[in-house]
Amino acid sequence: MLLHTVRVVRTAKSVPYRLAARSFSSLDLIPDEPSTPQVVTERIPGPKGIAASAEINTFQDSRTHVIVPNYEISKGNYLVDADGNALLDVFAQISSIALGYNVPALLKLGRSEEFVRAALNRPALGSFPPVQWAEWIKTGLLTVAPKGLDQCITTLCGSSANETAFKCAFMAYRQRERGSPDAPFSQEELESCMLNHSPGSPQLSVLSFKSGFHGRLFGSLSATRSKAIHKVDIPAFDWPSAVFPSLKYPLQDHVAENKAEEKRCLEEYEQILINSKLTNPVAAVIVEPILSEGGDKHASPSFFRSLRLIARKHGAFFIADEVQTGVGATGTFWAHEKWGLKEGEEPDFVTFSKKMQAAGVYHKKETRPNAPYRNYNTWMGDPIRALQARKMIQLIGENNLVAHTAVTGQLLFSSLSSVFSSSAVSGKVYNLRGQGQGTYIAWDMASPQMRDTFLSKMRNNGIQIGGCGDATVRLRPMLTFGEKHADILTGTVEKVLKEL
Amino acid sequence: MLLHTVRVVRTAKSVPYRLAARSFSSLDLIPDEPSTPQVVTERIPGPKGIAASAEINTFQDSRTHVIVPNYEISKGNYLVDADGNALLDVFAQISSIALGYNVPALLKLGRSEEFVRAALNRPALGSFPPVQWAEWIKTGLLTVAPKGLDQCITTLCGSSANETAFKCAFMAYRQRERGSPDAPFSQEELESCMLNHSPGSPQLSVLSFKSGFHGRLFGSLSATRSKAIHKVDIPAFDWPSAVFPSLKYPLQDHVAENKAEEKRCLEEYEQILINSKLTNPVAAVIVEPILSEGGDKHASPSFFRSLRLIARKHGAFFIADEVQTGVGATGTFWAHEKWGLKEGEEPDFVTFSKKMQAAGVYHKKETRPNAPYRNYNTWMGDPIRALQARKMIQLIGENNLVAHTAVTGQLLFSSLSSVFSSSAVSGKVYNLRGQGQGTYIAWDMASPQMRDTFLSKMRNNGIQIGGCGDATVRLRPMLTFGEKHADILTGTVEKVLKEL
Repeated sequence: MLLHTVRVVRTAKSVPYRLAARSFSSLDLIPDEPSTPQVVTERIPGPKGIAASAEINTFQDSRTHVIVPNYEISKGNYLVDADGNALLDVFAQISSIALGYNVPALLKLGRSEEFVRAALNRPALGSFPPVQWAEWIKTGLLTVAPKGLDQCITTLCGSSANETAFKCAFMAYRQRERGSPDAPFSQEELESCMLNHSPGSPQLSVLSFKSGFHGRLFGSLSATRSKAIHKVDIPAFDWPSAVFPSLKYPLQDHVAENKAEEKRCLEEYEQILINSKLTNPVAAVIVEPILSEGGDKHASPSFFRSLRLIARKHGAFFIADEVQTGVGATGTFWAHEKWGLKEGEEPDFVTFSKKMQAAGVYHKKETRPNAPYRNYNTWMGDPIRALQARKMIQLIGENNLVAHTAVTGQLLFSSLSSVFSSSAVSGKVYNLRGQGQGTYIAWDMASPQMRDTFLSKMRNNGIQIGGCGDATVRLRPMLTFGEKHADILTGTVEKVLKEL
Repeated sequence: MLLHTVRVVRTAKSVPYRLAARSFSSLDLIPDEPSTPQVVTERIPGPKGIAASAEINTFQDSRTHVIVPNYEISKGNYLVDADGNALLDVFAQISSIALGYNVPALLKLGRSEEFVRAALNRPALGSFPPVQWAEWIKTGLLTVAPKGLDQCITTLCGSSANETAFKCAFMAYRQRERGSPDAPFSQEELESCMLNHSPGSPQLSVLSFKSGFHGRLFGSLSATRSKAIHKVDIPAFDWPSAVFPSLKYPLQDHVAENKAEEKRCLEEYEQILINSKLTNPVAAVIVEPILSEGGDKHASPSFFRSLRLIARKHGAFFIADEVQTGVGATGTFWAHEKWGLKEGEEPDFVTFSKKMQAAGVYHKKETRPNAPYRNYNTWMGDPIRALQARKMIQLIGENNLVAHTAVTGQLLFSSLSSVFSSSAVSGKVYNLRGQGQGTYIAWDMASPQMRDTFLSKMRNNGIQIGGCGDATVRLRPMLTFGEKHADILTGTVEKVLKEL
């Protein structure tokens, strides 16, 4: 059994983090946040939640409902459900709430005339952008642009962000094959694409990784390799997938094995890139810095740096899918910052959505399509989500919330390590991971059933928490989650694990 | 030359429409709407607009910009640009503004606490729907559900609405092949889909029509057949396309020819459905009631009814793509209402977006996926757009705006017919179409260059107007567009055509 032993980090290096953590309290941003969960029904969901789901089920599938919240009275890290249960939310709408519910500074933005008029006068951004558009983006999304990427295409969701990156990559790849940005399309290309045939609709592919998740539209789903139920019965492009390393934990006890595992995966990956050139060349490689839906799978910075460099070596563009990992939860604003890429080695595309609320693609100017209307649609994003992102980015900066999350994650990881090392939970919990990745922490449980029971019991004990992969529990708290929340979470995890 | 001659409809049947038109004025909803366009710069865009585009171009492609509006001071049917030009807008953000800019009743919604809290507490709707969700949908989107369709999946845009319908159709098709809704997937299916191979990723297709437009993500783009520049260099599924009729105008002068043309297309269409069974069976047929981006191509109600029935005969689901045609502009709430489908013949799926602001799919309960999480994603729509749709639907009903648009369209069509019959515009304008389709009116010009010059000169004369297809001008005014706007539009069309 591979239990992670306690290794509480208390080095000099961690001291600044510790201070940063102490300097921010969620009450700074959400003065009336509850201090503890409140559970008022015997089970969650309670009778009102069950009735609300049944009502929705008359017109929309409710089988995936977890709880039916009352968002109007939820506060900060606490999500209140239809029955009045106030749950500490460490899942955050599938990792999509950055700061909390009803944060006064965000509600103030929502009540501003600027926001209201942007919301009710929605433009076709590609042709009729608002006169404030440059200001909104330059003082918002562009202030957190990953190093080396100064272009930003906005979209409406993570799936369309990834597909936009795919399209840019395919267009740039073909244009490179034509020899120059100005080289014209051939008549055969223009005619064959209208029939969905090559050469106009080219035999090109996107390489992704087993257990990776990149969305559920037809292109992004072809790259997604999370679960069969996400993919079965849906036609897919014949795109290749490579094996992602399965690391053993604790990392420091398996250094050589893990290094060999990563080497094995890199070799297979490069071989796929080579082999595909004959049939379905890889125009782009896409990977999440932490494979999230697929079970929170990590790999070393050097593994990712190799992925990037090998992609380039074989002429493939490189896409870092930061839809779930982006916006601070891993203790850096972007998770790929930890890879140690040098100048010029940056990903060609970084995609974002979820906690950013705005979605889109950061990229370099050389991957702009060579003609207008090639990357174009009606809305091309939503200005109010750009305004919301701008405000959240400002609040994250002012409150130093990325550093705060880095240290909160250190504390949380240490506490969970302590809990999991107890003989009382022996045989239930494995592979605690995410050390040094902020609050982006996960562990496996002995079986999928035990994991599901655990999630349900956590909820009944006041914690809204989520799973991923087959038997994994993933933590995705907000950036305002701090030591006091971590104490409640750890205490409840311990209680529920002992009762399992 | 096939000019449409003047046929002003003044039958008894049209009287109620005429009365309805007179009974509504845009001032009812937008009391301070300007009375005429105001052009203050020599050309449009003016210097401030050009500077704003250049600023945006530092981080985002600006080649598709038309004008840079100031949405804060735009009003009703009038769009004000960065230079202060107030243009009568008959393009409406590519057919996506239903009622006008800064409509007080909509701004009031935007300022409500309900809207603000819904905007800043965005849920993962599939798992954590707000407690008001059933009420919001039942009193909004469901009140205009097409006959026979009582289920509604929400999405974020038209492309994803269409792809959601495709996915539902593929899942239902394969489940039907398995013999029952409860029939399990085979192990081979579950394994092969993870490799994007059949049988798990099946060889199935969506049939669409040449000149059809259904979106620009990878699945929807494979069904889109509008222009090569939309498709070239992007891998596509090997899905079939059928020819859509090219009708001759005026319709009443070409009855036999047009009937023969539709018959020819139906025969080809059925043959494709039959032939595809051997290689790549058609699981779904998708068509717009008026092929819009592709050049405003119309066909008869009986043609569409045949499409629907032939699809069923060959086991294909039928999707009416009402993303652009929906929400009243054609003089009925849904354009497919005019097809005369009997009970049980309804489309299996009707998709919507654009003017509805909310996007999604209406369908029947039998096309719900047989297991949870098969049709699922993080956001599954946006509650504020559902709230906005609800309010707009209420305003459309209270002000009788669908009937208003039907009669405004009659008047506008008659006026344009008069203008186009003048010898002064001879050789410039062809194929006026859209009679009886509300304000969904279009015509062709002698060349793409002449069309583009016309659009630009219209703008310089105070009208923001759009094109489609190769040389087509399409009108897409809002539902508050009335006789006074039609007079300004027609007068300007006449002036500009004469100057061309």
